[in-house]
Amino acid sequence: MTKADAKAGFLDQVSWNSDGLVPAIAQDVQTGRILMMAWMNRESLAITASEGYAVYWSRSRNKLWRKGESSGHLQQVREIRLDCDGDTLLLLVEQQGGIACHTGRASCFYRTLAGDEWSTTQPVIKSPEAIYESPEL
Amino acid sequence: MTKADAKAGFLDQVSWNSDGLVPAIAQDVQTGRILMMAWMNRESLAITASEGYAVYWSRSRNKLWRKGESSGHLQQVREIRLDCDGDTLLLLVEQQGGIACHTGRASCFYRTLAGDEWSTTQPVIKSPEAIYESPEL
Repeated sequence: MTKADAKAGFLDQVSWNSDGLVPAIAQDVQTGRILMMAWMNRESLAITASEGYAVYWSRSRNKLWRKGESSGHLQQVREIRLDCDGDTLLLLVEQQGGIACHTGRASCFYRTLAGDEWSTTQPVIKSPEAIYESPEL
Repeated sequence: MTKADAKAGFLDQVSWNSDGLVPAIAQDVQTGRILMMAWMNRESLAITASEGYAVYWSRSRNKLWRKGESSGHLQQVREIRLDCDGDTLLLLVEQQGGIACHTGRASCFYRTLAGDEWSTTQPVIKSPEAIYESPEL
């Protein structure tokens, strides 16, 4: 990963946690909508910065997660920001397909607290079955 | 904390991590700007929901953090959202004073990746010295 090595400086300024990860928030650059929150390790941030598409670290699968690789819902990265403590990233992205969530919704934050309950307040745009029904799977 | 106990249901639906915490993103409800990311435990979410002002859990000080208690920069909470996995919260807030960051900037995400470097792209609105120079300190 030559490109990533060459860019070690900005990677060193990130305060990775004890697992070598930081939270990364994805925000739609056009609408301002918060799409999702996932995790990045050093390698995923290096690849994201060099390739321009969001690559996260999947904690459940314990491997790099190229967002959209199975759904087609890639996130083209327009800007990468770092917070004051250096321990959280913000990606401003163009969300391909207008769907970030694996449930087929625009955003993963589709539940809103109403009184004592979480109420679903965003529609499913495309069913998960339809999203993941691509030939390559 | 009677109110919190009464609302145990929605608290139980949050997937707290092994430390009993989840990340909470604060977004300005009017501008859509991402202000900060902090952490919440069960008690801080219960209080936030019942009182309507953001209360986080400070991992460095290991105690409840009533946002704005020393700076005056309270966050009035208009909406609380939960993501698909139940392990991240999103708060839509009105940021009092227009400053969320302890550096005196509107947002904590004031550094943008430019080439191989993090570049500061947001101005200080009010110096930290001025912010934290209140009589009660």
